[in-house]
Amino acid sequence: MRKRNFPLSRVYRLLESGPVVMVTTAYKGKANVMSMSWHMMMEFEPPLIGCIISNRNYTFDILKNTKECVISIPTAALAKKVVDCGSTSGRTVDKFKAFGLTAKRAFRVKAPLIDECFANLECLVIDTKMIKKYNLFILKVVKAWINPAIRSPKTIHHMGRGEFRVDGRTIRFHTNVI
Amino acid sequence: MRKRNFPLSRVYRLLESGPVVMVTTAYKGKANVMSMSWHMMMEFEPPLIGCIISNRNYTFDILKNTKECVISIPTAALAKKVVDCGSTSGRTVDKFKAFGLTAKRAFRVKAPLIDECFANLECLVIDTKMIKKYNLFILKVVKAWINPAIRSPKTIHHMGRGEFRVDGRTIRFHTNVI
Repeated sequence: MRKRNFPLSRVYRLLESGPVVMVTTAYKGKANVMSMSWHMMMEFEPPLIGCIISNRNYTFDILKNTKECVISIPTAALAKKVVDCGSTSGRTVDKFKAFGLTAKRAFRVKAPLIDECFANLECLVIDTKMIKKYNLFILKVVKAWINPAIRSPKTIHHMGRGEFRVDGRTIRFHTNVI
Repeated sequence: MRKRNFPLSRVYRLLESGPVVMVTTAYKGKANVMSMSWHMMMEFEPPLIGCIISNRNYTFDILKNTKECVISIPTAALAKKVVDCGSTSGRTVDKFKAFGLTAKRAFRVKAPLIDECFANLECLVIDTKMIKKYNLFILKVVKAWINPAIRSPKTIHHMGRGEFRVDGRTIRFHTNVI
């Protein structure tokens, strides 16, 4: 996929609606990916993201140590792969290989972009204080990519237990606020 | 609306998909409501919720002082009211009156339920340490209500600038994980 730079000031528009995302990390040249729904925007610019990653997840220690990840946003077409990545562990499975995902080199971090996703956010962990108590990582987006060919991406929202709602119709209101 | 108790262990299924929510507070007998999209689940049970409320919002000081709020989840039918509540301030407007919302007495907190919303979560602020740096409140849900008549609620997801995606089709996968 050909992607272009996406302004950091607009990253919140990709994330605040709560899509399932895929989080990639890399450690000693080996990449891993997990699915995640427990995340939120915390600041517009630079974009800050809060997310909860269980300390039972393989990603937890890697992210804590490397302090780098990429958040990639899939559309509904990738839903099965999202579930597969969420049901397996990088301890025993090379998920990129097993589920046919393409790792692409990022610009600022060692963790890879997932090429099949329409948007990719390169992130640094900037605050580790709440990891111990809440498994809460605070990330700063340092580079964002988007596939401009996908105009109105249908993202998916996890409702628990393998059930997802796909983005439906769009409604718009005139408003003077963000 | 007649609502029944909703198990705390299932609250994450209402929130992790990222619906816009409405946050009510009360101070000296006066209730207020704001719209919010920057929230995430942080723990299953007891359900913990992280949310960002700007210190420019009228709600900020009230929540910081009273340490109580209710998170109510609207369906698409309430979208206009969500936008209205997000475009005005409780400093100058009685939003319940102005936008025709019904405040209903909660069970555990002084902040009211919004009766028109299909789900209501009574919350206590349990951690104030990250308010100063990030405007981050950590809430514990102590009581949850749901309208059992609404089987498959169409929630709305804010994309920024008054644009929302309405829940569309549902897809389900067999999975052994939460």
